[in-house]
Amino acid sequence: MSFIHEDFLLTTEHAKRLYHTYAKGQPVLDYHCHLPPEDIASNRQFRNLFEIWLAGDHYKWRAMRANGVGEAYCTGDADPYEKFLAWARTVPDTLRNPLYHWSHLELKRYFGFDGLLDESTAETVWELASERLAQRDLSVFGILAKFDVRALCTTDDPTDDLAHHQAIAASDLETRVYPAFRPDTALTVNHPGVFNSWVSALEASANHEVRSFRDFLDAIGQRHDYFHSMGCRLSDHGLDYVYSDFPSESAVEAVFDGTRDGTPASPAEHAQFAAFMMLFFGQLDASKGWTKQMHLGARRNNNTRGFVAAGADTGFDSIGDWPQVESLGRYLDRLDRDGGLPRMILYNNNPNDNYTFATMLGNFQDGLIPGKMQFGSGWWYLDQKEAMEWQLNCLSNVGLLSRFVGMLTDSRSFMSYPRHEYFRRVLCNLLGREMASGEIPNDYGLVGGLVEKLCFRNIRDYLRLEGV
Amino acid sequence: MSFIHEDFLLTTEHAKRLYHTYAKGQPVLDYHCHLPPEDIASNRQFRNLFEIWLAGDHYKWRAMRANGVGEAYCTGDADPYEKFLAWARTVPDTLRNPLYHWSHLELKRYFGFDGLLDESTAETVWELASERLAQRDLSVFGILAKFDVRALCTTDDPTDDLAHHQAIAASDLETRVYPAFRPDTALTVNHPGVFNSWVSALEASANHEVRSFRDFLDAIGQRHDYFHSMGCRLSDHGLDYVYSDFPSESAVEAVFDGTRDGTPASPAEHAQFAAFMMLFFGQLDASKGWTKQMHLGARRNNNTRGFVAAGADTGFDSIGDWPQVESLGRYLDRLDRDGGLPRMILYNNNPNDNYTFATMLGNFQDGLIPGKMQFGSGWWYLDQKEAMEWQLNCLSNVGLLSRFVGMLTDSRSFMSYPRHEYFRRVLCNLLGREMASGEIPNDYGLVGGLVEKLCFRNIRDYLRLEGV
Amino acid sequence: MSFIHEDFLLTTEHAKRLYHTYAKGQPVLDYHCHLPPEDIASNRQFRNLFEIWLAGDHYKWRAMRANGVGEAYCTGDADPYEKFLAWARTVPDTLRNPLYHWSHLELKRYFGFDGLLDESTAETVWELASERLAQRDLSVFGILAKFDVRALCTTDDPTDDLAHHQAIAASDLETRVYPAFRPDTALTVNHPGVFNSWVSALEASANHEVRSFRDFLDAIGQRHDYFHSMGCRLSDHGLDYVYSDFPSESAVEAVFDGTRDGTPASPAEHAQFAAFMMLFFGQLDASKGWTKQMHLGARRNNNTRGFVAAGADTGFDSIGDWPQVESLGRYLDRLDRDGGLPRMILYNNNPNDNYTFATMLGNFQDGLIPGKMQFGSGWWYLDQKEAMEWQLNCLSNVGLLSRFVGMLTDSRSFMSYPRHEYFRRVLCNLLGREMASGEIPNDYGLVGGLVEKLCFRNIRDYLRLEGV
Repeated sequence: MSFIHEDFLLTTEHAKRLYHTYAKGQPVLDYHCHLPPEDIASNRQFRNLFEIWLAGDHYKWRAMRANGVGEAYCTGDADPYEKFLAWARTVPDTLRNPLYHWSHLELKRYFGFDGLLDESTAETVWELASERLAQRDLSVFGILAKFDVRALCTTDDPTDDLAHHQAIAASDLETRVYPAFRPDTALTVNHPGVFNSWVSALEASANHEVRSFRDFLDAIGQRHDYFHSMGCRLSDHGLDYVYSDFPSESAVEAVFDGTRDGTPASPAEHAQFAAFMMLFFGQLDASKGWTKQMHLGARRNNNTRGFVAAGADTGFDSIGDWPQVESLGRYLDRLDRDGGLPRMILYNNNPNDNYTFATMLGNFQDGLIPGKMQFGSGWWYLDQKEAMEWQLNCLSNVGLLSRFVGMLTDSRSFMSYPRHEYFRRVLCNLLGREMASGEIPNDYGLVGGLVEKLCFRNIRDYLRLEGV
Repeated sequence: MSFIHEDFLLTTEHAKRLYHTYAKGQPVLDYHCHLPPEDIASNRQFRNLFEIWLAGDHYKWRAMRANGVGEAYCTGDADPYEKFLAWARTVPDTLRNPLYHWSHLELKRYFGFDGLLDESTAETVWELASERLAQRDLSVFGILAKFDVRALCTTDDPTDDLAHHQAIAASDLETRVYPAFRPDTALTVNHPGVFNSWVSALEASANHEVRSFRDFLDAIGQRHDYFHSMGCRLSDHGLDYVYSDFPSESAVEAVFDGTRDGTPASPAEHAQFAAFMMLFFGQLDASKGWTKQMHLGARRNNNTRGFVAAGADTGFDSIGDWPQVESLGRYLDRLDRDGGLPRMILYNNNPNDNYTFATMLGNFQDGLIPGKMQFGSGWWYLDQKEAMEWQLNCLSNVGLLSRFVGMLTDSRSFMSYPRHEYFRRVLCNLLGREMASGEIPNDYGLVGGLVEKLCFRNIRDYLRLEGV
Repeated sequence: MSFIHEDFLLTTEHAKRLYHTYAKGQPVLDYHCHLPPEDIASNRQFRNLFEIWLAGDHYKWRAMRANGVGEAYCTGDADPYEKFLAWARTVPDTLRNPLYHWSHLELKRYFGFDGLLDESTAETVWELASERLAQRDLSVFGILAKFDVRALCTTDDPTDDLAHHQAIAASDLETRVYPAFRPDTALTVNHPGVFNSWVSALEASANHEVRSFRDFLDAIGQRHDYFHSMGCRLSDHGLDYVYSDFPSESAVEAVFDGTRDGTPASPAEHAQFAAFMMLFFGQLDASKGWTKQMHLGARRNNNTRGFVAAGADTGFDSIGDWPQVESLGRYLDRLDRDGGLPRMILYNNNPNDNYTFATMLGNFQDGLIPGKMQFGSGWWYLDQKEAMEWQLNCLSNVGLLSRFVGMLTDSRSFMSYPRHEYFRRVLCNLLGREMASGEIPNDYGLVGGLVEKLCFRNIRDYLRLEGV
């Protein structure tokens, strides 16, 4: 029997029935990813496994570095096939890492490859993939159809003109593709160079001169309107932790003006500026019925040499251990008191924050919108079987699993769609095991219905994207 | 087979035998709860499920709010039956939440209801319950007898006159009902209004005028004596974290005098005052052989709007992530050096504190009192199957499970006694699984004896309540 | 069937085959322990179970104290047999504590005792052990041969003359015995008495007068050279957390000079001094290709009375909850930028640090040395089945299990070698379960090879000890 077989990860009869009857046929709504809109607009056809699978994948680079594979084969300038070969040699050494599961699931679903990838099978796999990737059904449009992706949300800077999204909307692609609003750079008053470049881009995109802090907010608001008009219903923030030292508007203006004049904000000033802006963003989202995503707790760019050599997002990021509760509580409460608490999906990178985040969110469920405050699915280092189970169990124990909006790929690669299948197998295995042991009722209507909700229905109802 | 069947949660033959032979027949000693003494004294007969089951249950309110049920049906003024109906509709959506298990276990044990509660069964359940609750064996006395509750300890303010406890003691109730001493309000020097009202109540109850800090301590000591005379052997504290910045008595006096004059203590003054008082309380307890309970790590009243509308303990509390170890270590060491370290049961609300708390307690086991320092059973958000297992495993791994004093209800409702059964099933399942796999010896004398100790014997021997 | 049988802890057929075919026959490389070199040099023959098993074992003392056994039977002056009897009486009460497994595994492997230790079997066990310990194959040399210990590394102060190591090297012992360099006392500028005594010992051992900070560093460097010449390839540090407030050399000199003059360093000065020294030690290790071990997160000597009565390492230590990530990240990055990052094995005492440590290490894998940065095996309170599994799972999920250097005893007793067997059983059980469920391929070449690497091969290749 091949490693990736029909019942992969499904260890009870109940799990198998749940998966095959209720989960497998559900469409995909991939509400958070980092796919390049340009590749969708151009319906890109990839030439080989390097292009679609290795380029940009810092998970694989970390594994290769840990295995003694030189940087030339990661972010460096080795030949694409040699990079692939270096990866193939590493794969057997990733046993028990999610890469091992993901890789084999992806090779099977995209190319029908049924074996194990290693040095001995590398060439076969490369050739098989190159041949298959040349076919129409593995173009970007083909892939989106193949995995029944009803909608996907990219991650976009507010200054982006969304031209690719316009092109996509005008194409005959059936998948709805919407932007998501990620204004992280708006907080960088500690880096005047970065900040002021961004303000210039903002001025250009909004066609709105920024002479004051109020202009700055107005221009951002205008971009928010524009994104909304393009179907955007989600924002996103990547933060160490939430900022909640709320200053007066005049204090924020002073920080803004200083940065515009080239003076970096001090850490305290930056924190106050960020706190103010996060309230502003919260209110923008609430006013339009958007959902705000917050990704908290990653400590980025830990390796200076690596960062200098390869830049951000190249595999030098890890999990932080900052206190999170006080500031998160103050932020949510402040938004709530001001009547500006939007729907929210909160992701933690440190598994120690599972229980604190999930219980804090429960304090702000409002009795009006079911599942308004969402404890997000396992993110980054937690996007693997064990940590998915932790997230599902935590949410179940202190909240309502039945209202969960489920999985996303968070990926930069078009080969990640089986990540949804992976989650569904984990979910069905968990529930099936409990049906089998009697921990939950042996009632397929009840449990199968839950599965369907977590695969697609909840997120569809929650986001209310146009045409989905 | 009904969901709640004879072997619910017991997944091995060993587990079944352990439960049915060793656990099931053990009496209950519910050493920590929030039951109203008045209801016991009056041998209250409840009219319906709202009165006995929903009123005051913030767990259910949180679940309902997360499910989009309006506040009118939680803490609001909807009709009792409509509130019940709203809850019944929510129950299927609580699948995998402990409420799902608890609710069905409770309906089965109190009313013999064998189905699943949802909208379709709500009316039947309501009527069945109303009919049964009218019967004598479901009066408070009847319930206590039915669940073989040998003793229970309520949670009481030191200024309480314990009149209900006197009435209970004079009644023919076989269950021993004792107060527990919870002086949280004695620390509120940051809120002069609250504090000074409490001092007035203290003066009245102790019949002792409080003109100085020394008077204050004396009056508290007198109440401690009185509680002791009423059979109390337990104190309890709810704190974010232990205070251990120990001040001089003169510094504390100054804080006390300031608060008496209406000046709120600063955070640092409050912390010092609380640290001093916690030493004082520790010594009081040690001097009389009491057991001190400390509940650490809940962050309360996070939602200002909710708190203003519905008050404390209405479902807006969550888990904090404060550092705990340094202050806890200093507090225990100080009590120990001064010869005033009482028996102690320490509960954590954040599962991340399991290992730190359990190992810190181990530093103060004194070789004289077996199991003197107790790592308390899963509390609040941790009072569910998975977290109970974490607590049992942690205690086993770094301490002595065999000395554990076991479970309590911590409940405000007379329908929570099956919580003990729930714990016993979880415990027997855990041990039975390990007998089956050979991880512990297949020796019913050894393992069954352990079960009996954790159900009743240890807590009886540990607390030494009169007549139990 | 006896409790410790052939397939103890092996719950699937796959696990049994993995253990018996791949793990069992592998040699032992015990790269971190606290065995007294003197006992090895003298090929000590122990007279009884007290000498080899109880003396110095603070794990057992903690269990006995928690069980109400008086200090006389722990660190006190009771008769050896009475101490043993007190321990034997406690053993049944340690059920589910790792002591229960360890003890029975040890009694079986050393003496062939097949029963359960308790009061009733105590005398038999004592006599059996006394008789067996008198035989040649249970001398220290005999024990090392019996458990196929190819090499072991002790833990030594830099001022140690390593005379015992010289004697061992000159003996006919086949096991290679090397020192490890543990300079914790070099950081104690907050305790001038301790520090200056150590400097005197350093001067004597290095035959190098220390008149300045530079002399101090030189003398340490000389000891490092000497240890290297004696085969040492490992250093070790025990710290609450890593220090990373890096000062100028002149600032450090001032702290050094002050301490030499008898002025204790302030906490901030101590932290800066320690940060500087840790960089220095890192560079020393890197320059010679050594491996640096860091043990972080234990809070020691929590019980003042116990510490005064019995000293350090007597069972009054627990797990700290300090933030670790920021300082660890800065330290590793600084070493890496300066080109002085050695191979490293990092151990955490708090299980909450698993994911943060493992991901931080991944940032500094350099693509040159496979598995350069090692997330160490479960340490101290985490050296038990459940926490070993956590460590293995964490490492698997965010790093490469296949590069892991595996288990060590960390013990002060010559009866701890079955700790390696214990780890191997846990490992094979984990992997076997996943082979059985299809979570990893049913491929004994792949999985068995992994087992062999984790038992011996990886650590052998990683440390590159002479003659191993």
